[in-house]
Amino acid sequence: MKIAVMGYGTIGSGVVEVLRINKDKIAQRAGEPVDVKYILDLRDFPGDPMEQKIVHDYQTIVNDPEIGIVVETMGGVEPAYTFVRAMLEAGKQVTTSNKNLVAAKGAELIRIAREHGVNFQFEASVGGGIPIIRPLNKCLTADEIEEITGILNGTTNYMLTKMANEGADFDEVLKDAQDKGYAEKDPTADIEGHDPCRKIAILTSLVCGQQVDYEDIHCEGITGITATDFKYAKVMGRSIKLLAMSRKVGDSYSCMVAPFMLDASHPLCGVNDVFNGIFVHGNVLGDAMFYGSGAGKLPTASAVVADVVDMVKHTHVNIYINWKPEKITLVDYKDSVNRFFVRTTSDRAAVEKAFGQVSYVEAGVSGERGFTTDAMTEGQFEEKAAQIALVNRIRLG
Amino acid sequence: MKIAVMGYGTIGSGVVEVLRINKDKIAQRAGEPVDVKYILDLRDFPGDPMEQKIVHDYQTIVNDPEIGIVVETMGGVEPAYTFVRAMLEAGKQVTTSNKNLVAAKGAELIRIAREHGVNFQFEASVGGGIPIIRPLNKCLTADEIEEITGILNGTTNYMLTKMANEGADFDEVLKDAQDKGYAEKDPTADIEGHDPCRKIAILTSLVCGQQVDYEDIHCEGITGITATDFKYAKVMGRSIKLLAMSRKVGDSYSCMVAPFMLDASHPLCGVNDVFNGIFVHGNVLGDAMFYGSGAGKLPTASAVVADVVDMVKHTHVNIYINWKPEKITLVDYKDSVNRFFVRTTSDRAAVEKAFGQVSYVEAGVSGERGFTTDAMTEGQFEEKAAQIALVNRIRLG
Repeated sequence: MKIAVMGYGTIGSGVVEVLRINKDKIAQRAGEPVDVKYILDLRDFPGDPMEQKIVHDYQTIVNDPEIGIVVETMGGVEPAYTFVRAMLEAGKQVTTSNKNLVAAKGAELIRIAREHGVNFQFEASVGGGIPIIRPLNKCLTADEIEEITGILNGTTNYMLTKMANEGADFDEVLKDAQDKGYAEKDPTADIEGHDPCRKIAILTSLVCGQQVDYEDIHCEGITGITATDFKYAKVMGRSIKLLAMSRKVGDSYSCMVAPFMLDASHPLCGVNDVFNGIFVHGNVLGDAMFYGSGAGKLPTASAVVADVVDMVKHTHVNIYINWKPEKITLVDYKDSVNRFFVRTTSDRAAVEKAFGQVSYVEAGVSGERGFTTDAMTEGQFEEKAAQIALVNRIRLG
Repeated sequence: MKIAVMGYGTIGSGVVEVLRINKDKIAQRAGEPVDVKYILDLRDFPGDPMEQKIVHDYQTIVNDPEIGIVVETMGGVEPAYTFVRAMLEAGKQVTTSNKNLVAAKGAELIRIAREHGVNFQFEASVGGGIPIIRPLNKCLTADEIEEITGILNGTTNYMLTKMANEGADFDEVLKDAQDKGYAEKDPTADIEGHDPCRKIAILTSLVCGQQVDYEDIHCEGITGITATDFKYAKVMGRSIKLLAMSRKVGDSYSCMVAPFMLDASHPLCGVNDVFNGIFVHGNVLGDAMFYGSGAGKLPTASAVVADVVDMVKHTHVNIYINWKPEKITLVDYKDSVNRFFVRTTSDRAAVEKAFGQVSYVEAGVSGERGFTTDAMTEGQFEEKAAQIALVNRIRLG
């Protein structure tokens, strides 16, 4: 099997490396050797062992009938979409690690692949090396999936873990994450939650079989989380995690990306550092959790190459993925129900006038008080919170 | 699709229940409705809604060409083996939750299924509802799997969790587990580790593609674990877990079932109560972990029905499983390398004469001392331990 890799950055070069390191094992599992014939990139790579395989025009790949599988690791919607579409229409199978492409164009590319009797797979687009897309499509098929909640961004999880362990403040850990290469120079997509938002949109689409637009999901990042919040969390025996959440409510889904204070008994509570975890609740399965490296060169490449192996074994056989282009209307964010931890400078009388009976949390922070509420809708919370002087609020999980 | 269920006990009746509860979702995922036509059992079930479907002779199922898939949930090697073999030879696909059957006859039944163009699947035989068989076969295919370590028995994990939380002793928690229905009247298979031993043999077979006989695996249960051991564990910040472990060493595997003291940072350390967890380390994936309900009626049935859905979609298409009947020679148990926690009534001089420098653990237990060793082979440990008065020893993980 001859394959092409589009994009010779971190993940693309990881794919080439995994195919080299585990060459024999992969050939055994795929049933035939898997060789990289082309690498598409704008750049040249003089001196690189793959130098001779670099091409600059994607049509070279489209027009070579020997290429059966194409790996897309460029990132971004365009030109990835144009290239992937052309590959599928030319009867080539495609796997991608590109969450932006899958969130925006997944349903359409799955349809095009099916029409051409090939496959479009994207295991690496969510959870890096953690198997989650295939388990949802192939393993948890006896269940009504009632909840998927994930720690889906390694950068922010690293930062929150460091804040928890060291009492450090946000700006300090962001700088450390940038120094270590975990966070980009422009960290917006991570710290504002845009990255996990696209990932939970993809997972929810697979669960409900329809298009979920990430623009419809309420999304909060971690920029408002402070060292003081962690003081309260410590007293409460909880950890603060950026969760991407999707819950079945009636015939629709309630989705949200936001920091939560997790109880120590929650399976995601112990998911620390750059690791990711995906919690799934099925109506007959009960609770399950998938844990591993959610990013990084080799773990992500491991998931891409697993797709390649699967596609070698499914040449000319379409693997059905239930994701129709019809858009689902999500539950209005204001109607989603949560419990809250609240920090306020208002006095007890004002707190109890707005919220009724609450549980106070003593963390030795002067000039303010912390408390937790019962479950209520986001809309109800906003109304009540408007009656007090709010310092911060974090949902409880 | 008409199916038959062999064995109408806990899991078998769970399968019928899951097919009823999630009828529409399962039909959608399978592409057609899945109906139970026969239930094979020695007993009658007067008044049961399925009463009319009960049959007593497996030949009724063998000879009905309408039956495409058979679910085996009887347990034990015979007569399950005879029945399953007859079904496969009659061109019917089979899924089983029966670890005894899979550990003893897995390779042969996979071969027979392949020869008849059908499938033999067994997702529920390890880890109950947790997807692990299919992830190993279909997801982690780009990796050299270097380690699989599982908490694979919910009964003993419940007992150990209770001992840790309540300071209770072994006999007390065993009685409680029996009262709650978690442990059998004869709890030998659980507390002596025979159950997780069969499961790690199955997982190792899938990883290496050859037959691993569970009789070849060194197996210790939890009957030697006392409340005093947990006092030391608490001081050390560790939890005691019954692990089933398989590590690649050269071209072979070192396998063991035994209690380990796990460091708090280990992903399996927080797997408590009746839950199971399976830790996997791949050479490019790194660490991953799968967590969920390892037993129980509905979670296990969820995995069985997921196999049914997969087989409906693979009628007349064999899904390749790499498990050859040729037996692999495991690494001699005496050569496997571990660190140890040791309790002794000998004095420091005797300890240090045998083990050299060690780290002592102070847990306020009078009349003895506890210490941890460096890494050494099991053989080396036995030689050294013979020189002191040993109270107990637990491996460190």
